[in-house]
Amino acid sequence: MVQTRQWILASRPVGEPTMENFELETVDLSDPGHDELLVETLYMSVDPYMRGRMRDAESYAEPWDVGEPMRAGIVAEVLESNHDDFAAGDVVTGQGLWAEHAVVDGHGFRAVDPDLAPVSTALGVLGMPGVTAYYCMLDVVDPEPGDTVVVSAAAGAVGSVAGQLASMAGARVVGTAGSDAKCDWLTDDLGYDAAINYKTTEDLGAAVGDACPDGVDGYFDNVGGPITDAVWPLLNVRANVGVCGQIALYNATEVPTGPRKLAQLITTRASVEGFLVRDYDDEQWATALRRLGGFIADGRLAYRENVVEGLEDAPDAFLGLFEGENVGKQLVQVREP
Amino acid sequence: MVQTRQWILASRPVGEPTMENFELETVDLSDPGHDELLVETLYMSVDPYMRGRMRDAESYAEPWDVGEPMRAGIVAEVLESNHDDFAAGDVVTGQGLWAEHAVVDGHGFRAVDPDLAPVSTALGVLGMPGVTAYYCMLDVVDPEPGDTVVVSAAAGAVGSVAGQLASMAGARVVGTAGSDAKCDWLTDDLGYDAAINYKTTEDLGAAVGDACPDGVDGYFDNVGGPITDAVWPLLNVRANVGVCGQIALYNATEVPTGPRKLAQLITTRASVEGFLVRDYDDEQWATALRRLGGFIADGRLAYRENVVEGLEDAPDAFLGLFEGENVGKQLVQVREP
Repeated sequence: MVQTRQWILASRPVGEPTMENFELETVDLSDPGHDELLVETLYMSVDPYMRGRMRDAESYAEPWDVGEPMRAGIVAEVLESNHDDFAAGDVVTGQGLWAEHAVVDGHGFRAVDPDLAPVSTALGVLGMPGVTAYYCMLDVVDPEPGDTVVVSAAAGAVGSVAGQLASMAGARVVGTAGSDAKCDWLTDDLGYDAAINYKTTEDLGAAVGDACPDGVDGYFDNVGGPITDAVWPLLNVRANVGVCGQIALYNATEVPTGPRKLAQLITTRASVEGFLVRDYDDEQWATALRRLGGFIADGRLAYRENVVEGLEDAPDAFLGLFEGENVGKQLVQVREP
Repeated sequence: MVQTRQWILASRPVGEPTMENFELETVDLSDPGHDELLVETLYMSVDPYMRGRMRDAESYAEPWDVGEPMRAGIVAEVLESNHDDFAAGDVVTGQGLWAEHAVVDGHGFRAVDPDLAPVSTALGVLGMPGVTAYYCMLDVVDPEPGDTVVVSAAAGAVGSVAGQLASMAGARVVGTAGSDAKCDWLTDDLGYDAAINYKTTEDLGAAVGDACPDGVDGYFDNVGGPITDAVWPLLNVRANVGVCGQIALYNATEVPTGPRKLAQLITTRASVEGFLVRDYDDEQWATALRRLGGFIADGRLAYRENVVEGLEDAPDAFLGLFEGENVGKQLVQVREP
C-alpha cells in the first residue's frame, strides 16, 4: 500500500484565496483498478482557472468539493499500470491531483516523449496553455500580415505563446504585463513589438494607443477589466476579440462593474468570442502539439517556466498567479524526473 | 425657384434631446445640377441612430453640423430630374433632409414601386429597418429550428421584422417591449411565443428565464443596458449575439457602467458581433427586399407604421423614440402620396 501527501480544498475562498483554504493531508491509496494507473507526480500545474473550481457556482465545469483533493494537470511517472497503453516507467500527462502519488484513470492520459523536450513542457508550451494559445490565436483572433494584435497577460503561459504565434503570422504584436522584467522578456526574447507595464502606466488607453498607431485588429484577452477597457476603443473595423481568460475578475466577490462598451461593436462590427480549449478534439491537440514542437525545435518559439520545488509550496505558487509573479508557465516540481 | 421649410440642428443635445435642439427654417433651393433631383418629400423616417449624428464624437459616420439641415431617409416624388434613371413623377427613396422639398444627388436613390406595397414601407419593412433585421437575424443571430431567440425593442421597426424571421426559421421567439399593447401585438399578431414588458417587470432576469426555459441560443440586441444584463446569463453554449443597436445608451452623457460580463463568453463560447447594414451591397439589399416583399405578399410578415402628419411634428416624432412610444416603424408624413 502506498501513502501520499495531498492538498485538499479545506474551505471555499471569499475573494482572494488564502492559505486557510488549503490543507495538506496524508492518506493511504487503494490499489489501481481496471484501466487505472498508480503514478508518482513529477510536475503539477497551477492555473488561474482553478479559482473557478474552488467556487460553488455554475461554470463550464463542476466545482470541486470541500474536503476533496485539489486537482491539477500533472506530469507523472507510471509506477503500476492496469491500462494497456501504459507500462511502469512511462512518463504521462493528464488530469491528476495536488499529490505526490495518485491512482488515476488511464483514459485521458497521454504519453510524454522525454526526448522531444523537457517533460515539464507537457504542462506548458506543449500542453494545455500552448494548445489554448494556438487555437484561440489562430482560429479566433486570426491575425493577418500587417495586423496589430494586443495580448494581455502576455508574459503568462498562454500569452507568451499567443504573441509569438501572432508575430509569426506577420502581425505587429503588443503585450501587457505586470513588471518591467516581463516587458523586457516580451520585447527582447519573444519578438513583441511593444510591451506595456500595466502596473506602472497611468493612462492605459493612451499607452495602448501609442503602441498601436494603426488601431487594433486582434485582441487576445486573458485578463479583462481595465486593460480590456483600454483596448476596446482602439478596435478597428472587423476586429476579432478572443476572450480566453478574465483573471482580473476571478477573485471578485461581487459582480464587477465597468463601462458599457457594446456600442463599440456596432461602430466596428467587431466580433467577440469566448474560447475554451476543451472544445478541441484529440486530433486537433496532436496537430497543435506537433506544430508547437516544431517551432521550438526551429528556435522560433521561446518559453519560460517558473518552477517551485516541493508539493508543500503548491498553494503559494497558485496564490502567486493573482499577484502576477510568474514569468511564463508556473509549475510545481514534486519530484525530480 | 422653389422654397422649402426644413429642420436644422440648432444645437447639440446634452443627454436626452429637446425641442431646443431643432429649428424650422424656410430657404430658397437652387436648381438641381448634373445627376441631381428636385424632390418633394412624401414620408421621412425618424430613427434612433440619428441621436448619434447629433453628437460631436467619432462614430461610424460623420456627425451632423450645427446650423445644417437634419438628414433622414425619405420617400419622395421627383419634381425635376437631371439623372438618367429618374423622371418627374417617379417615387424614389434615399437619404434626404427633414424638409418638404430638397435637391438631392440621384446616386444612392432608388425607385419605389407603388404597386408592390404602400410607398411608406420603403422606409420601414421594405427599407433600411427591414434589411437590417433580415441580415442581422439571418447572418449573425442565425437561428435554427428549435432554438430560442430573444429580440429586444421587439415592437420597433427592426425588432418586429427580426422576430418574425426567427419564427419563420423555426425558433421559439421572445421579445421585450415597453408597453402591454406592444407585447399583445407581438404575441397576437407577430407570432412571438412570449413577450416581456420591461417597464413593468421587476426582475427582468427571472422573467427572461421563465420565457426561455431552454436558455437563449440567439439574441438580437437593439437596446443594451439592463435588458442585455438580463439576457446574457441565459446564453447557451455557442449562442450568437447580434449587436444591432444600443438605444438604452444613446442619450447617456457619461459612459454608462454595468456588470462586466465577458467571462460569460468563456463559459458559453458565445459569439458577439456588431452589425451595420451599410456593409451590405446593392445586390444584397435587392435580395432582402425581394424576400421581405414576398413574405408580406404571402401574409407571413406583418408590420405596423406609426405615422405623424406634418413636417412641423418631426422633432416630436423623433423624441418619442426614446420614450418607447412607437409601435412599429415611426414615420412623418410630409405630403399625401
